[in-house]
Amino acid sequence: GEIPAAKLYEDNYTFAFLDTAPVHKGHTLVITKGHYVDIHDVSEELVMKQVQVVKRLADAVKRATGCDGISIGESNGKAAGQVVPHIHFHIMPRFEGDGLKHWPHTKYQPGELEKFSEDIRAALGK
Amino acid sequence: GEIPAAKLYEDNYTFAFLDTAPVHKGHTLVITKGHYVDIHDVSEELVMKQVQVVKRLADAVKRATGCDGISIGESNGKAAGQVVPHIHFHIMPRFEGDGLKHWPHTKYQPGELEKFSEDIRAALGK
Repeated sequence: GEIPAAKLYEDNYTFAFLDTAPVHKGHTLVITKGHYVDIHDVSEELVMKQVQVVKRLADAVKRATGCDGISIGESNGKAAGQVVPHIHFHIMPRFEGDGLKHWPHTKYQPGELEKFSEDIRAALGK
Repeated sequence: GEIPAAKLYEDNYTFAFLDTAPVHKGHTLVITKGHYVDIHDVSEELVMKQVQVVKRLADAVKRATGCDGISIGESNGKAAGQVVPHIHFHIMPRFEGDGLKHWPHTKYQPGELEKFSEDIRAALGK
């Protein structure tokens, strides 16, 4: 809730919002509301609900950003690059020839985060 | 079904098996039995069942390989690096300091694939 504009979706179990240091703009995170460290810690039922939202957001991010593809990732443990110890799925827009192999981060210019957030929320309803 | 030893799990909806060109040995793929190209093409219900199996296999792969972490990935579209146009989740064992950023591939030595397959299938039952 730190950046209200970044919020994309919320239900009883999950929360989706824009990553403020996106691989590409529109990069979205889907987290559980309850605290679970990783995929080993979460229940099957809850990770299923989480992925239902990941699918919905992946569709919306694609429509909203016009990206060519989507990379979905979920990291478990520091060895896998997990920094925040709370299970989260990344939904990363990808573009032909973007050459991304290791997901560097870019920055939103002022106002852009709000715009992407709005576009994705709008696409969620379609 | 080309490499029977690689088979790890099967139910009415999904099939899990070892990737024969693994990022690290024990690298597992979970696919749907029905043909769906990507996360946009599959139903919410089916991708939820698929991820239920991903969670079970992630737990099993961790126990079986003793890895330090697990990277989970699912690619949609050529722009995202999707090569095989049938939705599949990667479950990739990770190790402290493995330095992997872009998932190079390694090879199983003769007999190793069978051993990893056996260990993961055994861990699935625990």
